[in-house]
Amino acid sequence: MLLALALILNPQEEVILTDPCYACYPNFIHLRQGIPRYLPIFEEEDYQLDISRLKKMLTPKTKALLLNSPANPTGKLLSAQNLKELAELSQERNLLLISDEIYHGLVYTGKEHSLLEFTPRAFILNGFSKLFAMTGLRLGYLIVPEDFILPLRKMAQNFFICANSLAQLAGIAALKEAWPEVKQMVATFAQRRTHLLQGLQELGFEIPSPPEGAFYVFVKAKHLTKHFENSSLNLAKDILLKARVGVTPGIDFGARGEGFLRFSYATSLENITLGLERLKKYLQKF
Amino acid sequence: MLLALALILNPQEEVILTDPCYACYPNFIHLRQGIPRYLPIFEEEDYQLDISRLKKMLTPKTKALLLNSPANPTGKLLSAQNLKELAELSQERNLLLISDEIYHGLVYTGKEHSLLEFTPRAFILNGFSKLFAMTGLRLGYLIVPEDFILPLRKMAQNFFICANSLAQLAGIAALKEAWPEVKQMVATFAQRRTHLLQGLQELGFEIPSPPEGAFYVFVKAKHLTKHFENSSLNLAKDILLKARVGVTPGIDFGARGEGFLRFSYATSLENITLGLERLKKYLQKF
Repeated sequence: MLLALALILNPQEEVILTDPCYACYPNFIHLRQGIPRYLPIFEEEDYQLDISRLKKMLTPKTKALLLNSPANPTGKLLSAQNLKELAELSQERNLLLISDEIYHGLVYTGKEHSLLEFTPRAFILNGFSKLFAMTGLRLGYLIVPEDFILPLRKMAQNFFICANSLAQLAGIAALKEAWPEVKQMVATFAQRRTHLLQGLQELGFEIPSPPEGAFYVFVKAKHLTKHFENSSLNLAKDILLKARVGVTPGIDFGARGEGFLRFSYATSLENITLGLERLKKYLQKF
Repeated sequence: MLLALALILNPQEEVILTDPCYACYPNFIHLRQGIPRYLPIFEEEDYQLDISRLKKMLTPKTKALLLNSPANPTGKLLSAQNLKELAELSQERNLLLISDEIYHGLVYTGKEHSLLEFTPRAFILNGFSKLFAMTGLRLGYLIVPEDFILPLRKMAQNFFICANSLAQLAGIAALKEAWPEVKQMVATFAQRRTHLLQGLQELGFEIPSPPEGAFYVFVKAKHLTKHFENSSLNLAKDILLKARVGVTPGIDFGARGEGFLRFSYATSLENITLGLERLKKYLQKF
């Protein structure tokens, strides 16, 4: 992410992010003195990117758009149709597209698409943290258009020299040998997802657009945040302290995430069941 | 290095580097749109930093000075007296000091000093690549004044999350158990250094200020570069192609490095001997 943005971004240039999006994205833009702009995305629109809304945001300073599908925090996929429209717009308006595909492979309903299916001029981010659960090894990769390879190589050599050598060997082993375990892990995530979705619905959360991938459920919780001055942060803190369940406040992911909570199912079915039980008890006070 | 500079540097602010210095330093400054300024250092002055020359370079935009002792490419130490003067200047002029101490421990004559011996307001860079020869594991650390810890932690979490977990365990093991091997390695480097210095002098290179640490010998080669339009790059290429010995052109380390070559003794005595023999043959043509 740091290399991709350092590669393309000059100070004062704008990068369009979705709101909500992964909380760290804007900070990589700030590092280069770039300006993040936020395209609102809506649960009611299945969190797709509205092209006409996007077009209105473009300025002569707009350099790139950053996509993430399956997305953190929503777990939603961008449709093939949406990606095709974005690829067309990118060509028309000379807009660079960065596609963070770190959750590819962790999809339980529907099918994820790489941006590379729709345009060769794509910057693709991926890594071993999610699909291979190698989080602590910090191994990622970046696919760039051919004319960006030489400058990217120079930047990578200067700033990082190389990825950790053990992680590189582990990555090769994962690619060669870990697919049976990955398949099993994905099946386990699918089970947990169903369990958590059901549990949250039973607790009164409405989930009109259920997540298709990653390992998150992003739910509207305005019926709860209203008791906390509409602050998802204060609600999340209260849940942590009183129910002893860790959830992420929606505001972490942008202004449009306010009033939402993100639940992660990257934990055992037993823990999810226990968490739901604790939440049930906690919710009785409202 | 990236974190230290991202932490303290705003666009258009200046960082003073020595000329010559490690070739990657200026690029970390460019990443933040900062401006590198170069303080010339001279073999004739044992590559110490001249305080009066330094004072003349300070502007209202000067944010920091980056030190490196033992230094790449010169292998020279900054004296305790020089570090003391720099620490005093830093306090007087509100200048931040970043001390890259990556070659600490690899010292064969004299004694290296940490900048922390002279001021608590120091930014100290170090890591496991050199002293523990764990280059491929990419494990480093940064010591900062207490009031910088919280912002640094935020940056580290956003940009890197953590260092590779295996490298962290290896680093702990190295700190606990590797000192006998380190001692042996330092003795081996000392031998190689003596061997390379003697060999280069026998080949006609003058070394008035021999290196004290790291694993480099930086030598004036103007009697050779004059045959290559005074280009150390062209000389180094010719040596590589004709003598099949890899040396680094001095120009890589700054304008004042032109006319110099850097020899590394991070290779076996046998290889050093072979390299010197090849060079001897190569030099006969001049």
